[in-house]
Amino acid sequence: MHLNLSLMTPGHFRTAWRLPHADPVAHLDIDHFTRLAHIAENAAIDAVFLGDGPAIHSDIADAPGTGIDPLVLLGHIAALTDNLGVIVTSSTTYNSPYNLARRFQALDHVTKGRSAVNVVTTGTSAAAANYGLAQHPGKEDRYRRAWEFLEVVTRLWDSWEPDWLIADKESGRYADPTRIHQIDHRGEFFSVAGPLPVPAGPQGRPVLVQAGGSEGGLKLAADFADVVFTVAQTPTKAVEFREDIRSRAVAAGRHHDDIKISLGVVVLVADSDAEATARAEQLYATLPIERLTAELLANLGLTEGSFSPDDPISASDLPKAAPSSGFSSGFNASTRALIAERPHTPRQLVQRSAGGSGHRLLVGSAERVADDLQAWLAAGAADGFTIMPADTSVDLENFATQVVPILQRRGLFQQEYRAPTLRERLDLRPRCGFGAKFE
Amino acid sequence: MHLNLSLMTPGHFRTAWRLPHADPVAHLDIDHFTRLAHIAENAAIDAVFLGDGPAIHSDIADAPGTGIDPLVLLGHIAALTDNLGVIVTSSTTYNSPYNLARRFQALDHVTKGRSAVNVVTTGTSAAAANYGLAQHPGKEDRYRRAWEFLEVVTRLWDSWEPDWLIADKESGRYADPTRIHQIDHRGEFFSVAGPLPVPAGPQGRPVLVQAGGSEGGLKLAADFADVVFTVAQTPTKAVEFREDIRSRAVAAGRHHDDIKISLGVVVLVADSDAEATARAEQLYATLPIERLTAELLANLGLTEGSFSPDDPISASDLPKAAPSSGFSSGFNASTRALIAERPHTPRQLVQRSAGGSGHRLLVGSAERVADDLQAWLAAGAADGFTIMPADTSVDLENFATQVVPILQRRGLFQQEYRAPTLRERLDLRPRCGFGAKFE
Repeated sequence: MHLNLSLMTPGHFRTAWRLPHADPVAHLDIDHFTRLAHIAENAAIDAVFLGDGPAIHSDIADAPGTGIDPLVLLGHIAALTDNLGVIVTSSTTYNSPYNLARRFQALDHVTKGRSAVNVVTTGTSAAAANYGLAQHPGKEDRYRRAWEFLEVVTRLWDSWEPDWLIADKESGRYADPTRIHQIDHRGEFFSVAGPLPVPAGPQGRPVLVQAGGSEGGLKLAADFADVVFTVAQTPTKAVEFREDIRSRAVAAGRHHDDIKISLGVVVLVADSDAEATARAEQLYATLPIERLTAELLANLGLTEGSFSPDDPISASDLPKAAPSSGFSSGFNASTRALIAERPHTPRQLVQRSAGGSGHRLLVGSAERVADDLQAWLAAGAADGFTIMPADTSVDLENFATQVVPILQRRGLFQQEYRAPTLRERLDLRPRCGFGAKFE
Repeated sequence: MHLNLSLMTPGHFRTAWRLPHADPVAHLDIDHFTRLAHIAENAAIDAVFLGDGPAIHSDIADAPGTGIDPLVLLGHIAALTDNLGVIVTSSTTYNSPYNLARRFQALDHVTKGRSAVNVVTTGTSAAAANYGLAQHPGKEDRYRRAWEFLEVVTRLWDSWEPDWLIADKESGRYADPTRIHQIDHRGEFFSVAGPLPVPAGPQGRPVLVQAGGSEGGLKLAADFADVVFTVAQTPTKAVEFREDIRSRAVAAGRHHDDIKISLGVVVLVADSDAEATARAEQLYATLPIERLTAELLANLGLTEGSFSPDDPISASDLPKAAPSSGFSSGFNASTRALIAERPHTPRQLVQRSAGGSGHRLLVGSAERVADDLQAWLAAGAADGFTIMPADTSVDLENFATQVVPILQRRGLFQQEYRAPTLRERLDLRPRCGFGAKFE
């Protein structure tokens, strides 16, 4: 089992800042993140993760949203750890491929092979106005751009062959230019000559992570991703998704084990189930339930005010198809699946999705949490999990120090880091396309 | 006196990789940079610096050129030091202002106020092809864009007022949106709504560094720069430049001490003058003199092949005005000034400019180097120096451990770090424009 930990602060419940012990500005405090990173590394966690969106959250009046730039933050943490991988979210819609390829190549050099990029197309329409666009591009355009973006980025990463160095001090010949290739890409969105200024780092290509369950997202994953983040409310859905993505990888000419599925789970862990439930109630009480109910109804395509927080919604109340705009299709699909099983109130749905993101909320003792992850793994639902602490200042440490040892005793998770690079530790084969194009 | 150290590797003589002791791939080795950073911090150096250009060097067959991304590299170094400032070069031509503002704000958070950005417009025309441009924009366009870029970046840095936080756990009010401002910039090059997702770091605005002696560069410096990097071959030229830039700052409504001048000097230090001269001869022997002579002639507007490496060039040989394209105007001006004093051969000019950059080469014992810097400081030529080691693996350490103690004994340089932020240590006043625009 592979395990990542999300450092999102104050937690996957963003209103966790209201709890008595919480520091409301912990998300701006590098020492907080460094402390979490050391806890994660002591537990042999594969990698830490931060999401991102390049705009202020619209609900800043209620809670901290997007944090400081994750490349800089996770780069700092990587410098202060020896083994921990770092998964940095970056937008293919609001970056240029040359800059992104260079930065992650650099991160791979300085971390000695512990870098990963989680490419997103950015769902926040507010971002567009920060980059001079009259409107946020539609999902299909964003994914078409993302595909071309990754085509460029991976070719740039491969632009130096391993045997580029001559370094003949006598003659003064430093490098062999015939081993360094322009990519001369010309496409719909980008024209990029290349090569990068320097050769690749230890991983060759940094680990490529991707999420998004739309058709465009699935194609991107099948062609490029090493790891796919996903969301599922039931093991059956997760197994279906994993089988689908593995088949798509094979159809794209890859081996089905070349893609690892990391399932997102929001975790709240305490010494006993009862204590965990009590802590969950405390967290639920921090949620602005009226506003979140209104958002939920809009996402489900229901009329504003048609359901109060405690009115049950049945499958027959839902429109045939969810609206395509707004929240991720993954969220809508999983919420609709829950309602299809039995009626749920907005409050139940909001609580279960930890305030709106659609990830599964897992509340309990360390034993219960370990049992649950073990069961999902055994069902073939995932290759591992991205653990999203409900209240990061408490649950990250509880997971690392209480749940991880149980998983280790059961032989389900590594006792220590087994290889120097993240790619090797995730059992991913090297990827490169050296020699694809010569000048 | 303020002192920065350039980490450029293998050195300001890029052919230093040919020397017997040199590691030809030190520029890809993070441990090499970390070692240099600790040496710099032990000497209480204000900041370390890396230049950048987003393209491969055309002479990669002869020497390493642009290195790995400097934001990532210097961010790593900052994490492993406590006081050292980091000056990261970034292009205003090949970045978006929202991304750049966010990244340097993040660097300021994680370094607790030790971040500086050296904005350049990028002189390398090869960069354009990596960003989909048919050709590299002309200098005037680049500086007009840079001015608007910095207008946007500084307003984004100021977009949160210091008293934005409410954090009332009882009511759930987290932030006061009336203290967080959109910038709604609409200009020739950019439309940026803002604000940034999070408030500023400890410095408010990261320290802004700028170079470039063209009219556009001087305007940018006068309006925005905290520190100006400059190049001069004679104290007279340097004093003139410093007086000019200080007057321009006053004309722009600032105090003349709001801009610090940091003069670039390439330094080769050894135990004795004789040993230093012998080491310089070794370095000169690594230069590809034929190619560098050809480049020099082209930069001076002279016909290819019109002078051999050892033919003296007199003032009367030079065209009236230097060609505007190609090398920086600073380089041409200082080279022409040298020839105006007395005839110089291409070999002498190439050696003196350390392989072509136009910075002054200072070769000698620690005493000689200290005397020279003291004399230039006393003449009013600068507020400090950016020391560019001739052979970084040797001269950075020699400067830090041999020259710095002399400057400290003479009371010219700090014995220890005097304040937590780089801005304070450079005697720069806080800058911000909070409240400039309310919603």
